[in-house]
Amino acid sequence: MKTQLIKDILVSQPDGRTLTVCGWVRTKRESKNLVFIQVNDGSCFASVQLTLDRENPADASVNLNSIENELKKITTGASIQAEGKLVPSPASGQAVEVALVSLTVLGEAPADAYPLQKKNHSLEFLRENAHLRARTNTFGAVARMRSQMAYAIHTFFQDRGFQYVHTPIITASDAEGAGEMFQVTTLSMEKIAENGVSAGAKGMSAEKAAALVDYGKDFFGKKASLTVSGQLEAETYATALSRVYTFGPTFRAENSNTTRHLAEFWMIEPEIAFFDLNDNMDIAEEFVKYLLNWALTKCTADMQFFNDRIQKGIIDTLAHVVNSDFVRITYTEAVAELEKNADKFEFKPYWGCDLQSEHEKFLTEVVYKRPVIVTGYPKEIKAFYMKLNEDGKTVRAMDVLVPGLGEIIGGSEREADYDVLLDRIRKLGLNPDDYRWYLDLRRFGSVPHSGFGLGFERLLLYVTGMGNIRDVIPYPRAPKLADF
Amino acid sequence: MKTQLIKDILVSQPDGRTLTVCGWVRTKRESKNLVFIQVNDGSCFASVQLTLDRENPADASVNLNSIENELKKITTGASIQAEGKLVPSPASGQAVEVALVSLTVLGEAPADAYPLQKKNHSLEFLRENAHLRARTNTFGAVARMRSQMAYAIHTFFQDRGFQYVHTPIITASDAEGAGEMFQVTTLSMEKIAENGVSAGAKGMSAEKAAALVDYGKDFFGKKASLTVSGQLEAETYATALSRVYTFGPTFRAENSNTTRHLAEFWMIEPEIAFFDLNDNMDIAEEFVKYLLNWALTKCTADMQFFNDRIQKGIIDTLAHVVNSDFVRITYTEAVAELEKNADKFEFKPYWGCDLQSEHEKFLTEVVYKRPVIVTGYPKEIKAFYMKLNEDGKTVRAMDVLVPGLGEIIGGSEREADYDVLLDRIRKLGLNPDDYRWYLDLRRFGSVPHSGFGLGFERLLLYVTGMGNIRDVIPYPRAPKLADF
Repeated sequence: MKTQLIKDILVSQPDGRTLTVCGWVRTKRESKNLVFIQVNDGSCFASVQLTLDRENPADASVNLNSIENELKKITTGASIQAEGKLVPSPASGQAVEVALVSLTVLGEAPADAYPLQKKNHSLEFLRENAHLRARTNTFGAVARMRSQMAYAIHTFFQDRGFQYVHTPIITASDAEGAGEMFQVTTLSMEKIAENGVSAGAKGMSAEKAAALVDYGKDFFGKKASLTVSGQLEAETYATALSRVYTFGPTFRAENSNTTRHLAEFWMIEPEIAFFDLNDNMDIAEEFVKYLLNWALTKCTADMQFFNDRIQKGIIDTLAHVVNSDFVRITYTEAVAELEKNADKFEFKPYWGCDLQSEHEKFLTEVVYKRPVIVTGYPKEIKAFYMKLNEDGKTVRAMDVLVPGLGEIIGGSEREADYDVLLDRIRKLGLNPDDYRWYLDLRRFGSVPHSGFGLGFERLLLYVTGMGNIRDVIPYPRAPKLADF
Repeated sequence: MKTQLIKDILVSQPDGRTLTVCGWVRTKRESKNLVFIQVNDGSCFASVQLTLDRENPADASVNLNSIENELKKITTGASIQAEGKLVPSPASGQAVEVALVSLTVLGEAPADAYPLQKKNHSLEFLRENAHLRARTNTFGAVARMRSQMAYAIHTFFQDRGFQYVHTPIITASDAEGAGEMFQVTTLSMEKIAENGVSAGAKGMSAEKAAALVDYGKDFFGKKASLTVSGQLEAETYATALSRVYTFGPTFRAENSNTTRHLAEFWMIEPEIAFFDLNDNMDIAEEFVKYLLNWALTKCTADMQFFNDRIQKGIIDTLAHVVNSDFVRITYTEAVAELEKNADKFEFKPYWGCDLQSEHEKFLTEVVYKRPVIVTGYPKEIKAFYMKLNEDGKTVRAMDVLVPGLGEIIGGSEREADYDVLLDRIRKLGLNPDDYRWYLDLRRFGSVPHSGFGLGFERLLLYVTGMGNIRDVIPYPRAPKLADF
């Protein structure tokens, strides 16, 4: 069929060339002699306008009868293929339009049945019609931004010598410990229930019932789950290839029915050998600025829409981050700052507390009025793999906070010393055997290394200004929600 | 620490500048006065050579005692940080080397414990040490190629106006039907067994045991599984954004313990509105050539290694594909060709049979001696969503076959007609209710569209010449295998 995308048509010279437009009709307006059809193909925010002047068609070949017959079938959502001439547009806000030569309706969208009519729909309604919502302005823009941010992430790392690593999705490792996990199995639960009933009838005691679950017969020969983080496996590649990053789905089986939680979400986790905490802060700051700058400069129409219709001022918010030097403070300094304003918080700040969202926002929005990187958290509130500072009390963690969101990135320099790491594992009551391969990285050619994690949907909430995380992923998964 | 990657050092001018090298020692050779250390950081195939001339060190500041102390700790696998001067190398095969000024061993790799010694290790041994294997020549090259091919895929599609879509990993949809699925659950199987035992003791009959499995209490409120394909969801975005692609993990719970099957693998699935079968063939051919050309031109050192050590002639094989016009034949023509040579096959070819690997290889290696795209397969051996041809017997499927592998891509034009699709679903005994949202794409603004799937690991096997699919993914998952 060899058609052009509307994004390319809209930036072409209106030199009268004949071209083919394919897409979905947004609106059709008719007066006595004039017809205007807005056609969108999702390749960009803007639609292209098709025009028909019944008294003065584009050229002598135009079959008005044929076009009129097709026009009758056109309602919002109909798909069309049109031929026409690319000409300058007299209308404001568009440089070009297409003077119709021929028109074919490919698929109708009966107005009495098609869910997406011209009126504004609630986000809830569109969530129920998630298979169609990318056809709307809002979700088209979100989808393009999601794609652009993903590509920006790959480009950032690839340009800097990072290798993309696919860490496993299914894991039998108990080593991650970052949250509640989903179990993955091919055992039949119905069969287990049946075996239980039979065994009970024969007198098995309930305490022994667990023996009826034989993981040796499960697909992987042991209990398996969905990953909650690829970090530990990414470290195995960073300590071979120097600079790596993951970008893949991760899972939490938390029963959190909020606008901020998903059961399935995408994470980016760079791991970098020979990077200490300062290097880690440098690249995290560079990374955030790069992504926001990409959004502002390469996605201008979609960003303008978010700014006008989703969150007023979002462009300024992002530009401010791009243009700021990130403040770097220690956790101890941060807590001192917060304690001065203790009366402003629901959760009273004190040295040793985990920083709450209200604290993070206060630091970045009120105290420093720009992004803040906080380092040196108490070891008790951070993960076992973070490098212990010389004080024996704090670890080389870093959280990157941005105005309007709070934490956007969490990371650390990793513990590279075998004995210190083993000690941390033991003191936390973890089983060193589960970490044998992870400890090996410290037994053989150990190197200082650092990394961080960025939740992709959290980034998208920030960039688009959308309010509900279920609206920045095509098909959200949450408690009681796995539609489509 | 701000060090340079070795890939950048190796292409720098040997102008005597001082720089820092970080990496892992591959080999150390010493003679009376001279020491040579090969250091690799995984950023590229080549190592950089550090040299020390004990009688004539790099400059007056060199502390020979300190260096000698560190040298004693160096064995294969040790990690080091070295400062030195970048100078021309007299050795063949390298333009530059680094004359040592100072040397620090960051982490030792005791020879009696470190699994990766200088000798060649079997692929099986390295599979058991998958957390270290990226430190070897072979798996470093595979990892870099995997990263390069992933980026090439994104770049190909992004440059052509495609949007990257993340289709869901967890699905409660029964609509995919492409293979055995893993179940995802938060129900406790031990608890189900226990409830079974209790119910059995109270006289429940075994036939009623399934009632003890209450999916209403499972995380998603219904039975959920891991996706086997993102295609159907990708179609919902293609019919909104015109051109989309997926690149994500997919899963098959098939009990296939072979060198060609994984339980977890990555798939690329473009879906393209307003593309018919011919357009689909065009872009599939362009895509394959683009990826192979990227490997040949941007990964020359790794490709040379694969060519020399993994599969002799692989460079020529790939170059031949890049430089060939792909033959395009119908299934009917293919079968006629095969029937002429029926005695050459284990499986006798006949019209209606599914093409076997031996048939595909014969077509592309013996008959046409270049890549072949076969179209118009009998509907009985292809999926329900493929567009029915006018003959009512065949569908607009396409399989792309390449010499040395057979099928590398499978795709089709999709059925865009609501009634025809519904009829196909019913005749196959599927439940139309499960496909409500998929059918909606044909009810509202339906458009001709096409797509295909590429198995990422299959591509990597082809490009690298590796023989076992478990060696082209960092942590393979297969029956009884979910280590790390």
